[in-house]
Amino acid sequence: MSHGLFISFEGIDGAGKSTHVEALAQAFRDAGRAVVLTREPGGTPLAEQLRQLALTAPMDPLTEALLMFAARRDHLGQVIEPALARGDVVLCDRFTDATFAYQGAGRGFDRQVLAQLERWVQAVDALPGGTLRQPHLTLWFEVPPEVAAQRLAGARAPDRFESQPLAFFQRVAQGYAERAEAEPARFARLQADQPREAVWAQALAAVRQRGWLP
Amino acid sequence: MSHGLFISFEGIDGAGKSTHVEALAQAFRDAGRAVVLTREPGGTPLAEQLRQLALTAPMDPLTEALLMFAARRDHLGQVIEPALARGDVVLCDRFTDATFAYQGAGRGFDRQVLAQLERWVQAVDALPGGTLRQPHLTLWFEVPPEVAAQRLAGARAPDRFESQPLAFFQRVAQGYAERAEAEPARFARLQADQPREAVWAQALAAVRQRGWLP
Repeated sequence: MSHGLFISFEGIDGAGKSTHVEALAQAFRDAGRAVVLTREPGGTPLAEQLRQLALTAPMDPLTEALLMFAARRDHLGQVIEPALARGDVVLCDRFTDATFAYQGAGRGFDRQVLAQLERWVQAVDALPGGTLRQPHLTLWFEVPPEVAAQRLAGARAPDRFESQPLAFFQRVAQGYAERAEAEPARFARLQADQPREAVWAQALAAVRQRGWLP
Repeated sequence: MSHGLFISFEGIDGAGKSTHVEALAQAFRDAGRAVVLTREPGGTPLAEQLRQLALTAPMDPLTEALLMFAARRDHLGQVIEPALARGDVVLCDRFTDATFAYQGAGRGFDRQVLAQLERWVQAVDALPGGTLRQPHLTLWFEVPPEVAAQRLAGARAPDRFESQPLAFFQRVAQGYAERAEAEPARFARLQADQPREAVWAQALAAVRQRGWLP
């Protein structure tokens, strides 16, 4: 049986990542792998309800962080871990890096608290002592916040996160950069301000380089 | 202006505490105080939605603990702290002691995690450094779990917590006892297996003894 693979897609709103999730799913299916497509916050009935609350109800940053990690815990236990145990490929649109980028860097919430929540929530029984569940690969779609803002302008109505000012997205981008610097082996940094085909070529190369696709 | 007062009501299901919340509210109103009646989990629109999820959806104990404390944070920020700042009397049907008793002692969830969540969630800006918001008084309605079970039998259909076996409620009762031993000044231990009038007399005495009612 193949080993399970966990790949997350990260980047600020308007980075274009979501359009590549389905393409990568198809590439894995063509190679004979079972694929689970999912997203955060969300991915289970409970977590989707928590997503809805977090995106629409005004709340304190700590309340929001607790809801985000509650949703993540449910998602890991109900969807991600069972899929990895079956040997599936899990493609997840956003994961914990987004929490550090948006809540931590973007909104200035205490990153020590986020780090403790990460240690609790991503400690998984199936993993050896002290190891945390993290994506095997994080595709980071990097795009200047100004470019992302132009892409989003005129698109669907923004939610509570997307309607933040540009300076917010600049802090979020910096938050992603810090996570990438801390774990360079896990992150593949994609220049996402290029045409779609060129971005896809970079994403595919990052996966092939690890021997996961022919 | 009077100082705000925060009084919590605790005890296992069937201890009869809820019937005394309204009576104490009336006693404070008769003494000229503004009273806020509330409950946990719940007390705000967001927290009531989280309560509904926690009481009905199956979930991992860590997910549940995060939801409980997210609800508590919202409740503190939206209801309890503003009421205390106004000088009101807040009567709350269950608070953090219930989390330690039910999730901690009852279900065996890691109490170190609960203690860390308590430190984060109950750290309130209005309080001096390092102090946590706790009730000024906790009325603990103590009743043998067997008696509580008899009272509940034949009453409304039990929710996910109430439908646990007797051994569970014995552990919960023990969890309350441990919290009471750790903070004896905050807890008033009421013998709640007595007739209602006798229990009420004990509750009133605990409040009068502190000089909060004539």
